Amino acid sequence: MNKPLSLIPDVQSSIDTRRLTINKVGIKALKHPLQVLNREGKAQSTVAICNMSVELAHHQKGTHMSRFIELLNADEQMLSMEAFKQLLSAMVQRLEAQRGYIEFTFPYFIRKQAPVSGVASYLDYEITLLGEINEGIPAVVLKTVIPVTSLCPCSKKISAYGAHNQRSHVTVSVRPSGPIWIEDLIELVEQQASSELFGLLKRSDEKLVTERAYENPKFVEDMVRDVAAQLNHHPHIAAYCVEAENFESIHNHSAYAIIEKDKLSPCGSVISS
Amino acid sequence: MNKPLSLIPDVQSSIDTRRLTINKVGIKALKHPLQVLNREGKAQSTVAICNMSVELAHHQKGTHMSRFIELLNADEQMLSMEAFKQLLSAMVQRLEAQRGYIEFTFPYFIRKQAPVSGVASYLDYEITLLGEINEGIPAVVLKTVIPVTSLCPCSKKISAYGAHNQRSHVTVSVRPSGPIWIEDLIELVEQQASSELFGLLKRSDEKLVTERAYENPKFVEDMVRDVAAQLNHHPHIAAYCVEAENFESIHNHSAYAIIEKDKLSPCGSVISS
Amino acid sequence: MNKPLSLIPDVQSSIDTRRLTINKVGIKALKHPLQVLNREGKAQSTVAICNMSVELAHHQKGTHMSRFIELLNADEQMLSMEAFKQLLSAMVQRLEAQRGYIEFTFPYFIRKQAPVSGVASYLDYEITLLGEINEGIPAVVLKTVIPVTSLCPCSKKISAYGAHNQRSHVTVSVRPSGPIWIEDLIELVEQQASSELFGLLKRSDEKLVTERAYENPKFVEDMVRDVAAQLNHHPHIAAYCVEAENFESIHNHSAYAIIEKDKLSPCGSVISS
Amino acid sequence: MNKPLSLIPDVQSSIDTRRLTINKVGIKALKHPLQVLNREGKAQSTVAICNMSVELAHHQKGTHMSRFIELLNADEQMLSMEAFKQLLSAMVQRLEAQRGYIEFTFPYFIRKQAPVSGVASYLDYEITLLGEINEGIPAVVLKTVIPVTSLCPCSKKISAYGAHNQRSHVTVSVRPSGPIWIEDLIELVEQQASSELFGLLKRSDEKLVTERAYENPKFVEDMVRDVAAQLNHHPHIAAYCVEAENFESIHNHSAYAIIEKDKLSPCGSVISS
Repeated sequence: MNKPLSLIPDVQSSIDTRRLTINKVGIKALKHPLQVLNREGKAQSTVAICNMSVELAHHQKGTHMSRFIELLNADEQMLSMEAFKQLLSAMVQRLEAQRGYIEFTFPYFIRKQAPVSGVASYLDYEITLLGEINEGIPAVVLKTVIPVTSLCPCSKKISAYGAHNQRSHVTVSVRPSGPIWIEDLIELVEQQASSELFGLLKRSDEKLVTERAYENPKFVEDMVRDVAAQLNHHPHIAAYCVEAENFESIHNHSAYAIIEKDKLSPCGSVISS
Repeated sequence: MNKPLSLIPDVQSSIDTRRLTINKVGIKALKHPLQVLNREGKAQSTVAICNMSVELAHHQKGTHMSRFIELLNADEQMLSMEAFKQLLSAMVQRLEAQRGYIEFTFPYFIRKQAPVSGVASYLDYEITLLGEINEGIPAVVLKTVIPVTSLCPCSKKISAYGAHNQRSHVTVSVRPSGPIWIEDLIELVEQQASSELFGLLKRSDEKLVTERAYENPKFVEDMVRDVAAQLNHHPHIAAYCVEAENFESIHNHSAYAIIEKDKLSPCGSVISS
Repeated sequence: MNKPLSLIPDVQSSIDTRRLTINKVGIKALKHPLQVLNREGKAQSTVAICNMSVELAHHQKGTHMSRFIELLNADEQMLSMEAFKQLLSAMVQRLEAQRGYIEFTFPYFIRKQAPVSGVASYLDYEITLLGEINEGIPAVVLKTVIPVTSLCPCSKKISAYGAHNQRSHVTVSVRPSGPIWIEDLIELVEQQASSELFGLLKRSDEKLVTERAYENPKFVEDMVRDVAAQLNHHPHIAAYCVEAENFESIHNHSAYAIIEKDKLSPCGSVISS
Repeated sequence: MNKPLSLIPDVQSSIDTRRLTINKVGIKALKHPLQVLNREGKAQSTVAICNMSVELAHHQKGTHMSRFIELLNADEQMLSMEAFKQLLSAMVQRLEAQRGYIEFTFPYFIRKQAPVSGVASYLDYEITLLGEINEGIPAVVLKTVIPVTSLCPCSKKISAYGAHNQRSHVTVSVRPSGPIWIEDLIELVEQQASSELFGLLKRSDEKLVTERAYENPKFVEDMVRDVAAQLNHHPHIAAYCVEAENFESIHNHSAYAIIEKDKLSPCGSVISS
């Protein structure tokens, strides 16, 4: 049982003759605790779902899965854009690969104050960092799912009173060309919604968000256009994808819209220029 | 490889000496195609998630898992209350058990007409049949998840215009004491909601459901009370549980309420009196 | 309430001035009953999750969501590759759009015979049809999730006895250039696995699949390469993507690999060349 | 918009005349950051899904949902059994209720050392704390989902070589009568599995866990019995429920077993005696 490791056969390291490069091979759906740096420079503790993979050359039988886990468990992870790029770099070195990919998805909290009473509470967002490294050049996409209220312009217009509204998810994925924080994206989106959400609302706050939503009706089409217009003007965003999904309160299905744009390349997608 | 079955050891049938009865043992999360009999006497095709289990006496090492699958695959399953009870009965016989349990969960469709235009479309509901048999006596619980619109009475009352509303799930579980159809439960619940849902609505219909919801504000507390009042008077219901969950359009969490009642036994739960 | 439709304002049809084309707008996560044509020419009933969307020109305020639902509810849907292309075509006509997209995801059953005893049972697979139409030209991708057994070559090689194995999902997405059936893809993949799965196995069958898996150890790397080699030679496949995910029995995370190839275009992806 | 709160109508506080007590009403599916005290006396940061509810007397129209959120956001939550009971108590006081219920579900990590190489990595478990308070008396149930390896005794016995094995979830819910830590329950269960899991294994470790699983074949029946035997003897456990679910590597469904016992009351369930 205590045979030295060098005497145990290493099947992964043997030669492969099928002449088929593997685009990505690695680990998926691993839960790991993380610290994330926020805009105020403080650390926020969370739990991430992690996917990590590398390209595998055609002549190699297998990758060394345990090295991905070693990298994750080497230090306490304090996640920032810079740290994420360093992890990409360390991964392809450790795995001896040309290309590598990392995805971390985690809940993230912002302490918000209710708009009238000022009472404070957390609101949760789902964040994903997607990274790719190729020949030493890292590229990162920041993806944020922002829950908001949407109120239907058609329903408001045609009805004698009321208007159907519902919770919606606006998902923004951006490839930054300059500094950008999760909080920046969230604020940008929440200003375009019929109303932003809060964990805790007193009656005076509920009155305000109800009336604000009624004053700001938006289709999914409006949401993605209004967010896209903001992202078009943002100097630190090279490419983006914005999606809106309304969990319709009058149907048992969603309304959905998406706009994608790469400012540098008309046919590019968000993840790779 | 073709050794007769009788020559292959049967580990499950050996004697167990730990003196521990197992409450339930069987199969879980099996997908299986089904036909369900609807109120019009027609068959509806669907796909169920199936759990089946039996009690295992303390002296038996294991149950025979393959027999559950054989029962399911023996015939095309045309599901009705009667057929379900017969399946419970057949299962405990085949597995030589005192007690047995079956759960089938499946999507179920009703063809609805929009309230003004009359255009027809399907709306989907999630149904679960839960059965238990003990010493030959079967008991069945019918559970239905009904998506509806809820509109907040507080938001309406305090706001100058508008009112937050959202999709809600009302879940009704009943132990029948007489004939009852899935369609009966759905109609009973939809009449108590701020509004029922539809797959397809034209503008004239959207106007109506928007105004109807505004005229019928309901908290989760109101939904469960109004449904409970109906179930209390229903002559074919011996016990029930009604839950309402609002996917709040102004928060990123749900509001939730539940009322449980066993008409025959003050401390009983829905599944067993 | 019964105002003629023409007198109710049509907000969606108004003019938009933001000059932003929307890539896709439509409905999402709608459940709908379907019939699917299988390789034997018979219909199989199932329930699909449906997404349908179209491109929206910059000058249009909104799409007409109800038309997607009308299309789905117009006829009983008997799904085949041809019918799916016709639905794409009908959708862009009805919605007056240049481009359109449809995704149907549904469980699909194959009646399999156990390898020794011959006992029959259903096994379920998850199928997705993804369609795109652009200026009248439809393109379809068929995606199939095939659950199999994988047995680890390293664990077998280094251990005195036994080898860890687990359930795996092999996901194959293909853009066909000739006739291809769901059943063809399933058989192609199952022949490359450590072993295929069955709903119902008697002891003689369990012996065979246990030994077969031990004789056929495969990493996720081997699975994607062996399936890719088959797809490379298949005359009716223009592009493909094959993924394998092992739900590792010795870890609480997955091992994962993917190979993508477009035979016609080195940089193309599966969905659009 | 800044009307004093006392001038805004309080619909929830009005009188209800339907004479129907609501068993539970409150909030559901709220995400909130937490600190959990571990056995070493250190704090572990995590993110919980929170459900909180109270009984509502028949004469009250509605509960005050915002108070649940206020309680959660009042302090940083450092979760221990004691703190959880205090929160139950504070909740029923704040909500002026007789009975109250709290459920927190969260990922929890243990730093484990691989059995031969000693390399360290995190393994994640899913924990739920369920609390109930009635007339001032709190009761708590600790629920832990422990992922393990299970290896089939039948497959091993009947096969010339190999044995199917897979990831399994063992779920243990206990009502303590004395001090008990999450770590205690996890160790108790892992010692009964075919093998425990690890995040990170080197080849020497993989050899050991493969052989250990082969030496320790267990049906779901064996798992629940062997864990139940341990829990029966544990002096700090008043009632328990143990479930095992094998995600079978030779099927596309699970095998499942459950044993429930209340040591004090033959008909009691885990949550309330």
